[in-house]
Formats: sequence, C-alpha cells, structure tokens
Amino acid sequence: MEWLTEDEQATWRAFLQATTLLEDHLDRQLQRDAGMPHMYYALLATLSETPERRMRMTELAQRTKITRSRLSHAVSRLEGNGWLRRENCPSDRRGQLAVLTDAGYDELVRTAPGHVTAVRAAIFDRLSPEQAEQLGEISRIIADGLNHPQGTDLPWLR
Amino acid sequence: MEWLTEDEQATWRAFLQATTLLEDHLDRQLQRDAGMPHMYYALLATLSETPERRMRMTELAQRTKITRSRLSHAVSRLEGNGWLRRENCPSDRRGQLAVLTDAGYDELVRTAPGHVTAVRAAIFDRLSPEQAEQLGEISRIIADGLNHPQGTDLPWLR
Repeated sequence: MEWLTEDEQATWRAFLQATTLLEDHLDRQLQRDAGMPHMYYALLATLSETPERRMRMTELAQRTKITRSRLSHAVSRLEGNGWLRRENCPSDRRGQLAVLTDAGYDELVRTAPGHVTAVRAAIFDRLSPEQAEQLGEISRIIADGLNHPQGTDLPWLR
Repeated sequence: MEWLTEDEQATWRAFLQATTLLEDHLDRQLQRDAGMPHMYYALLATLSETPERRMRMTELAQRTKITRSRLSHAVSRLEGNGWLRRENCPSDRRGQLAVLTDAGYDELVRTAPGHVTAVRAAIFDRLSPEQAEQLGEISRIIADGLNHPQGTDLPWLR
C-alpha cells in the first residue's frame, strides 16, 4: 500500500472539514426553518421533480444514495408530518411508492428559498465559475467510482 | 434570492451524491475492519498526531468539527473499547483531556493501511494531480467560509 503524500493528507483533511461543516450547517438551517434534517428535504425535493410527484421507494433510495432502512425511517417521519404518503405500486405487487402530498409540496416551496440561499452562500458565492465547474467534475468522478464498486455493497441494495 | 443555475444544480447534486456515497463507503470499510464508524477513526487519528497523544476535549471537537455532545458520546464508546481514556486537565480544573491509549494506538496502526487504501482508491487514484489540488483549494474555501459564520453557531461551541 502507499500512504498519502503531505499534500494529499492536507487535501483530505480540508475535504472532511468542509463536508462535516457543510452538512452541520445545512441541517441546522433546515431544522430551524422546517424542523427537518437536510436528508429529509432532499427526499421531498427529489419527489417534487418527478412528473407526478411520486417514485418507487427503491428508486428514491438509489437517487439519494441511502439505505432502504434509512429511507423507510425517514418516510415514516415525513408521513407523520403529512408531507408524504406511501401507496402500493400498481405495476408491482411488492413495490411501494413514496408520494409527495400537497402539504409536502407547499412546505418545500416555503423552505426552498432559505435552503438555496444557504447553499449559495456556502458554496457558489465563494467559488469562481471555474472552481464550481471543477467541483462538479471532481464530484462526478468520485460518485461514479463509488457507484460501481466491486461487489454490490451499495446503500440502496442493503 | 437567486435560484441555482442548471449547471450549479447538477454540481450540487453530484457533490451530495459523492459525499453521501463516500461517507457510507468509509463507514462500511471501518466497521468491517475495526468495528467503528469513520468519525471514531478520525478521533483516534487526530490524537495520534499530537506529541503526547492527548488533547483537550474542546480542541478535539473543534479539530474534527463536531458537537461536544457527539464527541462525548464517541469518547464514551471508545473508552469502552479501551482505545481512549479521559483525564482531568492539569492546567484547568474544568477541562478534560482525551488520551489515546497504547491499545488505541495499536488499533490505529492495524487499521490505517486499509483505511488509507480505501481513501486512495475512492479519491486520489481517480483524480489527476491538478484535480486533487483543485479539490484541496475548493475544500479550504468552503471550510473557511463555514468556520466563521455570522453568529457563533459552530458545532463545537454548542
């Protein structure tokens, strides 16, 4: 094996600090404004972008890169708020759909401006256009690598 | 407020996917090899780099960017494994130190190669040297911005 160089170590530490601080910051912002963590917001936002505001649970887990059990827990909480509901999938007896309710959509519309402002202030207002482009490219490379690991240890397949 | 452009949205989504997949991947790797999540490993590693393998709890929280309560919980678990112990701070009656034990150091030495190999395979083996440098610079910009937010809502001050 090969250890990280000093530059690589510094990069890795800065990356961990950036992602830890960012996740904390966005969780706090959304907890304050909407009483939900960032991951729940991402579920509502993902559903809102589909034509009928609904998606199979397995696909929702895959899109958001989380485990089925974590998704199931989140959906139960969001059902309790009246923002989501589960429906049986008409084309597959064993499948279930997550459906964004009108109340969930309204909540998303209400909280989106504050969330987008937070993301912009933390990232895009601070990076040059070139850096924003580099971040996109680097993120796609890392995500692609982990989307096809050896074996099938992907979160949404567990 | 200003919405994200399409390019910014795509970048933000790729970044979220990359960080979610990476954290899951490293947690799984360390749970399998050492029975601890990535954050616990980061605590042991941070202590191992100090001269006497010890650090004030408040500073350890600040370095790792986590809340005091999260740190306290993690330290209790690591104490249970015999990898850390708490000591009173000689220079400050109310302060406490986290001390890496010899067993904790040995565990770190045992698990470091597998962890570094995973980090290298997920990131540095996949990026060009220029991209690795860009990632470091971008991460520092984002972390610096969140280290000095308006107000004092930093994790380790809560």
